[in-house]
Amino acid sequence: MVPGHEIVGRVTAVGEGVSRFQVGDLAGVGVMIDSCQHCESCAEGLEQYCENGHTTTYNSREKDTGNLTFGGYSTSIVVTEKFVLRVPGSLALEAVAPLLCAGITMYSPLKHWKIGKGHRVAVVGLGGLGHMGIKLAAALGAEVTLFTTSQSKAADALRLGAHHVVISSEPDAMKAARGSFDFILSTVPTKHDLNPYLRTLKRDGQLIIVGAIDPVGVHGGMLISHRRSVAGSNIGGVAETQEMLDFCGEHGIVADIELINIQDINTAYERMVKNDVKYRFVIDMASLSTAETNPD
Amino acid sequence: MVPGHEIVGRVTAVGEGVSRFQVGDLAGVGVMIDSCQHCESCAEGLEQYCENGHTTTYNSREKDTGNLTFGGYSTSIVVTEKFVLRVPGSLALEAVAPLLCAGITMYSPLKHWKIGKGHRVAVVGLGGLGHMGIKLAAALGAEVTLFTTSQSKAADALRLGAHHVVISSEPDAMKAARGSFDFILSTVPTKHDLNPYLRTLKRDGQLIIVGAIDPVGVHGGMLISHRRSVAGSNIGGVAETQEMLDFCGEHGIVADIELINIQDINTAYERMVKNDVKYRFVIDMASLSTAETNPD
Repeated sequence: MVPGHEIVGRVTAVGEGVSRFQVGDLAGVGVMIDSCQHCESCAEGLEQYCENGHTTTYNSREKDTGNLTFGGYSTSIVVTEKFVLRVPGSLALEAVAPLLCAGITMYSPLKHWKIGKGHRVAVVGLGGLGHMGIKLAAALGAEVTLFTTSQSKAADALRLGAHHVVISSEPDAMKAARGSFDFILSTVPTKHDLNPYLRTLKRDGQLIIVGAIDPVGVHGGMLISHRRSVAGSNIGGVAETQEMLDFCGEHGIVADIELINIQDINTAYERMVKNDVKYRFVIDMASLSTAETNPD
Repeated sequence: MVPGHEIVGRVTAVGEGVSRFQVGDLAGVGVMIDSCQHCESCAEGLEQYCENGHTTTYNSREKDTGNLTFGGYSTSIVVTEKFVLRVPGSLALEAVAPLLCAGITMYSPLKHWKIGKGHRVAVVGLGGLGHMGIKLAAALGAEVTLFTTSQSKAADALRLGAHHVVISSEPDAMKAARGSFDFILSTVPTKHDLNPYLRTLKRDGQLIIVGAIDPVGVHGGMLISHRRSVAGSNIGGVAETQEMLDFCGEHGIVADIELINIQDINTAYERMVKNDVKYRFVIDMASLSTAETNPD
């Protein structure tokens, strides 16, 4: 498997019929490289919900050839123009890459549910997604709170643009937060109890999960008593991803990253597992051409 | 306890300052008889979500006196005008009563989520609520499907206005229903697995629970993959309940009921527990005045 689906670089060649890119242009590739292009979701620009299944950037099967797709841990990638994004030249390239998955995963639900000025938003968890959720929700005009179990993350959350931090392991803090929020983005990627967060939603409040793939507990009464919702959201469509990149260009928003060489990837992986990264590792692919072959 | 919160009758007396009712008028009382009247939800006419807690028609505490409230199993009830509904004279009175809880519980989410022509709606369960859900969704112009485990309920569902019936215990039928619905109303009042129903929602489809007070299982991937939602909804506000009664008056909609005397209530209860009722028992309260006192 060749992973990597937050990819930024320069165009080295264009095929016939390509009109939006020239050799030398900055370009980005995110989570998808194809979709059926004829279902209702594709027609609406929601390729991420393609009813025939979009083709992911790595470890997926190309629709035409059936070949495996190989991602961005590579010196080059060939992608159909439709799924290639324009990258604002004003931003630090290495810090743009995580916008293509972490960024759009936060931006899409904020836009779909029309979050902006006057809304109180909470983000659960401060990692690759959470730190983008804070930046984007704040840039959209919302009042932003971080829910975290780590007191140590509070200062960084405020630096990133959060207006408040609630330590979710403190019962009094959670009690004080009841009925506070219009919208919660839970970025926690593992099984977690949603009920304590649901309780902090106002009437008609919505909790959006983007990463929890295990079953999640939801108490029915918590929903019924205040007409609350739990919804899921998956990355964003191509047009929306472009909109997000343009928005980030206008607002000077990028991810907080650590740039590494590909030779350091195992160390980076171990640090990531221990939550020791602020907030995404990005690989400088130029280092790949200097990598020695490891016979193991 | 004196239960009863689907109450229809005639006004026998009015207090000073009452302007909307006269002695002899038809009137209805639903699930609530008071709310704080000054919170945001009350200001929006959503007294069912009163942030200080509405006063329920029975076994609740009156805000001013602290006295217990007594419901409709009674020869009379005193209710503040604001929480009294006008009842269309064109409808069979005994069959109007269940509209005041079962009816509004189905009507409110259908209206809140703007369901009507062009929408495919499914109702889970054919009981007091479910049979009203079918009637109301069909009257609003939706294409309606009943999910039931009982083949024996299929014919009745079609009679009530459903266009289709899916037997939810048949895997092939459930598989064929995948991705079909815009909106599902689950009326099941006990713990049940929502995942098989979630799978039948389209992208952006919503499953509304109104009766499940036990924890319900929701698979996160089921939500994320199609931006589906699970939400709760609780009865309706006073103005919306009036709107529902007027809508039912225009469309000739009432509940299917069996009228009983209060002397038969224990038999009725036993039948209800066995699902042997189509679809609500309604007590003729005139029978109360002839009831013999039972010293046991």
